[in-house]
Amino acid sequence: MSLLEETLQQIQPVDACWIRKAEARQLELTKPPGSLGRLEEIVNRCAAIFESLSFAVARPRIVLFAADHGVCAEGVSPYPQAVTAQMVLNFLRGGAAINCLARAGGIDLKVVDVGVAQPLPAMGGLVQRRVAPGTHNFCIEPAMTEEAALTAVHVGIEMANEAAADGCNLLGFGEMGIGNTTAASALAAVVTGLPPATVIGRGAGANDACLARKVSAVKRALALHADHISRPMELLARLGGLEIAAICGFCLGAAANRRPALTDGFIATAGAALAVRMHPPVKDYLFAAHSSAEPGHKHLLALIGQQPLLDLQMRLGEGTGAALAMNLVQAAVAAFTEMATFTSAGVSEPQQPEVNA
Amino acid sequence: MSLLEETLQQIQPVDACWIRKAEARQLELTKPPGSLGRLEEIVNRCAAIFESLSFAVARPRIVLFAADHGVCAEGVSPYPQAVTAQMVLNFLRGGAAINCLARAGGIDLKVVDVGVAQPLPAMGGLVQRRVAPGTHNFCIEPAMTEEAALTAVHVGIEMANEAAADGCNLLGFGEMGIGNTTAASALAAVVTGLPPATVIGRGAGANDACLARKVSAVKRALALHADHISRPMELLARLGGLEIAAICGFCLGAAANRRPALTDGFIATAGAALAVRMHPPVKDYLFAAHSSAEPGHKHLLALIGQQPLLDLQMRLGEGTGAALAMNLVQAAVAAFTEMATFTSAGVSEPQQPEVNA
Repeated sequence: MSLLEETLQQIQPVDACWIRKAEARQLELTKPPGSLGRLEEIVNRCAAIFESLSFAVARPRIVLFAADHGVCAEGVSPYPQAVTAQMVLNFLRGGAAINCLARAGGIDLKVVDVGVAQPLPAMGGLVQRRVAPGTHNFCIEPAMTEEAALTAVHVGIEMANEAAADGCNLLGFGEMGIGNTTAASALAAVVTGLPPATVIGRGAGANDACLARKVSAVKRALALHADHISRPMELLARLGGLEIAAICGFCLGAAANRRPALTDGFIATAGAALAVRMHPPVKDYLFAAHSSAEPGHKHLLALIGQQPLLDLQMRLGEGTGAALAMNLVQAAVAAFTEMATFTSAGVSEPQQPEVNA
Repeated sequence: MSLLEETLQQIQPVDACWIRKAEARQLELTKPPGSLGRLEEIVNRCAAIFESLSFAVARPRIVLFAADHGVCAEGVSPYPQAVTAQMVLNFLRGGAAINCLARAGGIDLKVVDVGVAQPLPAMGGLVQRRVAPGTHNFCIEPAMTEEAALTAVHVGIEMANEAAADGCNLLGFGEMGIGNTTAASALAAVVTGLPPATVIGRGAGANDACLARKVSAVKRALALHADHISRPMELLARLGGLEIAAICGFCLGAAANRRPALTDGFIATAGAALAVRMHPPVKDYLFAAHSSAEPGHKHLLALIGQQPLLDLQMRLGEGTGAALAMNLVQAAVAAFTEMATFTSAGVSEPQQPEVNA
């Protein structure tokens, strides 16, 4: 049995009785019922994931998967492909946006090379799990073999297993890969059934001509691979990316290890949507950090059944949205587990039946 | 010259040239232009407030003002008035939601008794600045004298001055006071010109009968005081609360000291709206933490010219929204001041003219 099959077998939906236990506990805390809004919803589900009303966030970690994309040959990004490797080096030196946000939030960051085109030097902090030097151009051939896609999924599962073994109980994920909004758009068009133009946006800042090239590339790829995109693994292989496949695996691994996992933007959520397609109970472990400015994101969030926690018009990737939302989850957990009760604090309860506005 | 007059004289609008300098700096950082969305907007304004491109958040502080309300006699809250004092004791023992969120966020919390009905014991952490044992019932008489309102405004200014002297450069404010959504609703109806029913919500959880009593109380109060609510100080005295007056002063003090200040929910924003009415440039120093579930909040946010950063369906007060948003401001500052530039990191810049989607 492959690691993927083993992992899928371990994933169980959460037990709704824990949601009800958490809801009952919320009513005892010194606040008007329901007044912490979505913080209550978040932590109630965490309680169901951990099967406990008494837990603390430990070693929150974001795993950032980087890979290159053959579809860059179609002129789908304003940035040269070399920027993927340059940005990985920037991550390792601590100079990128995600490093700043992770430091500010006390979040551990792991950077995984799952398929950067240029060989990277062995550097402290880099997890070298390069499956291939990027994907092929899916406008003319499959992005990768199914074997390569499976290997990348396994990298993601292993990163989730490692995080669990390291005692991390709150996970997030992000990506870096020039051209990867185009791959995510192709996947999004397939899994949502929507016309490509509906789910394709400007990514890192495409102008009108570049945007038109993205739409054209996705349309040609969908036509080329139309007969080979029904199973999630063949879909990943034909139209995906190595970092997207790894993220799919990471979501599966997080669910198998019963760890809440925060998705980031459009590309990360494409990976999450594939995981949910493979095994719908994965949804129970996913939280949507934010609503990206990419137009396809909301459709993917609907597929994974999550409402975003933040809407700050961000479109950077790297796990930056996940990093911000991690602070909200930590706050929600702190409020739930540390707040006094009406009884313990000697605070009078409401004198009339409650009505939730 | 009173402290209020002195404070008003010190408040200057921010210089837009600093916004432009910050925008130019943003373009040098290793991220697609504009890709941090509202985090960029936040920090660009902080740069204008501090007149610097190089700053760090120091000793973030939330000041929580507590007071009681005579209008409770009209049955406008499901909670007995004694809960105000009980919750202040809960704050001082660290057991309330705001304590949990402040601890999780590394935020200093000050609790100020500006008019709790029951005398509170001297306890560590309590700032005793009680102007009166709560307000009068504004359905039958002014909530307080103008002198009391001015004293409460001065308490707020002094708390902002103290925070500045303590080296706090990121401020937030919140409130506790059973019945204070009714006072805030009366103020909101006046300053927005909207019908009371439009701005009145269920507060801490009013049922239909309680909600009807809130609407009736506000309508009667507006009729009674109609001829004495044009100047901000008389409006505060007739229909306000001691904690709302103090929050108004705190906003003025934050602006006078050039400190960014995060408003919390509906009641806190009513205080902020009065400050903006006294002196419109105060707007430049205010940030809206979140959109509360109270229906009047969005109208008050429009008056202070701010878009909320969070929308988590919270309606708790205490500064809980401000505490969550403070983490976003800290993240925004970290990203702006710590991120590498394209030049320093050796990352290639985009190869085509940028189009912001």
